[in-house]
Amino acid sequence: MIAKLKASVAKRNSLLCVGLDFDPSKTDERYRSSPLEYNRIVIEATKDLACAYKPNAAFYEALGMKGLEALEKTIKLIPSDTLIILDAKRGDIGNTSKMYAKAAFDILGADAVTVSPYMGEDSVSPFLEFPGKGVFVLCLTSNKGAQDFQKLKCPERYLYLEVALKCNAWAKAHPEAGIGLVIGATQQEIAAVRGVTALPFLVPGVGAQGGDLETAVKEGNRGGLALINASRGIIYPEGKGDIAVRIRAAALELRDGINKVK
Amino acid sequence: MIAKLKASVAKRNSLLCVGLDFDPSKTDERYRSSPLEYNRIVIEATKDLACAYKPNAAFYEALGMKGLEALEKTIKLIPSDTLIILDAKRGDIGNTSKMYAKAAFDILGADAVTVSPYMGEDSVSPFLEFPGKGVFVLCLTSNKGAQDFQKLKCPERYLYLEVALKCNAWAKAHPEAGIGLVIGATQQEIAAVRGVTALPFLVPGVGAQGGDLETAVKEGNRGGLALINASRGIIYPEGKGDIAVRIRAAALELRDGINKVK
Repeated sequence: MIAKLKASVAKRNSLLCVGLDFDPSKTDERYRSSPLEYNRIVIEATKDLACAYKPNAAFYEALGMKGLEALEKTIKLIPSDTLIILDAKRGDIGNTSKMYAKAAFDILGADAVTVSPYMGEDSVSPFLEFPGKGVFVLCLTSNKGAQDFQKLKCPERYLYLEVALKCNAWAKAHPEAGIGLVIGATQQEIAAVRGVTALPFLVPGVGAQGGDLETAVKEGNRGGLALINASRGIIYPEGKGDIAVRIRAAALELRDGINKVK
Repeated sequence: MIAKLKASVAKRNSLLCVGLDFDPSKTDERYRSSPLEYNRIVIEATKDLACAYKPNAAFYEALGMKGLEALEKTIKLIPSDTLIILDAKRGDIGNTSKMYAKAAFDILGADAVTVSPYMGEDSVSPFLEFPGKGVFVLCLTSNKGAQDFQKLKCPERYLYLEVALKCNAWAKAHPEAGIGLVIGATQQEIAAVRGVTALPFLVPGVGAQGGDLETAVKEGNRGGLALINASRGIIYPEGKGDIAVRIRAAALELRDGINKVK
């Protein structure tokens, strides 16, 4: 995962990850029942600009079998040199995580999955046994609820820092696999996390969620690599006119905006 | 969820939840490629003994589209007065959790979903906006990795107790929805959790994982209700002979074993 990510970042001069959260309620009537066709437009319009795509499993599961078929086929549309992060927030006891890993890597063909750390090492390690694949572990998320548990002192340091330190250790123990962290752009603590780890970051929360792009890019890329994800802001851009043109413009603006401040 | 659960427990005089973790590598050759047919045998053999069924999403996702179809159809085979818990460990920012809730409740027809607390209140609350539905929130899980984060002191009490207390508050705030907790039978702390909450428990970890049944049943049901889940131990029983007969015998033994010590 790490080698593929770095090569894609370099090739496209881009830290932009495009989130594929297909939502019929936000989609023009013409494509409302065609997630695959809509995603094809998004991917065609952005494939030289996005170093990674992040399909969000929930949005396809909510559409039933048809949605899941579209997810499977969408992943096949993504260029083979681009990182595919299945955003699924999985994690369970070992024998079950192994099945989630199989689904994400073998069945769907993703390169990485987002996973929850709550159940600890043996819930994450099955994902690390697939050579070339990897995970982004939830560390400090972009939502309000991040304060409920992630920001508790446990007892010497915050839970999100405990997670970051454990991930350092797991990365050492699994040199063949890739481990990154999810850090919300809405969180001022991104510098504190970067202070304890050089693992790659996946940073959602710019755009619709209101995170500060400049801080996220600068602090996240100081001694490490931080992918910046945007979903709604790219795939459902404001304005009128040809949708492919507007999606490309939104992606280009964000990619270049990231490069300007990094 | 709570009313349905209580009625099912009373009707069947049972606290037994049967986990539907279909695994081709454990299934007799005859049914290895027929998850739906195998689950039909399990459900037919146990439907008067199980107060709840818990299909584990991972095992179906790992089989691709065919597995997901079998999951959808399996849920339709479960008697309408029996609680259906989709074991999926979901949880994400609000707009995404809403999609997971839609998938579990509207598309699949589950009554409850297991969710991870890591992302906090707004990652759980979308599941609580479906009247009559509910969640079992991971509190103290049955696996070794439970010690990595769940047993950290945060800072006054353990993280798993923080989760239990937050769930009490969320349950009060959503009286129409059901909230329960997942507590592994392998954990001695089940009494400590019962000491701070009357919410229903879903207790995995007896059987293959080696949890102590008597402690789990006694402590879990002291001032609350504790469902005891078994998956592999019921659906893949040891021995030879007719599989339906052996599955029924394993379920009957566990249901009665639970009733004897409760």
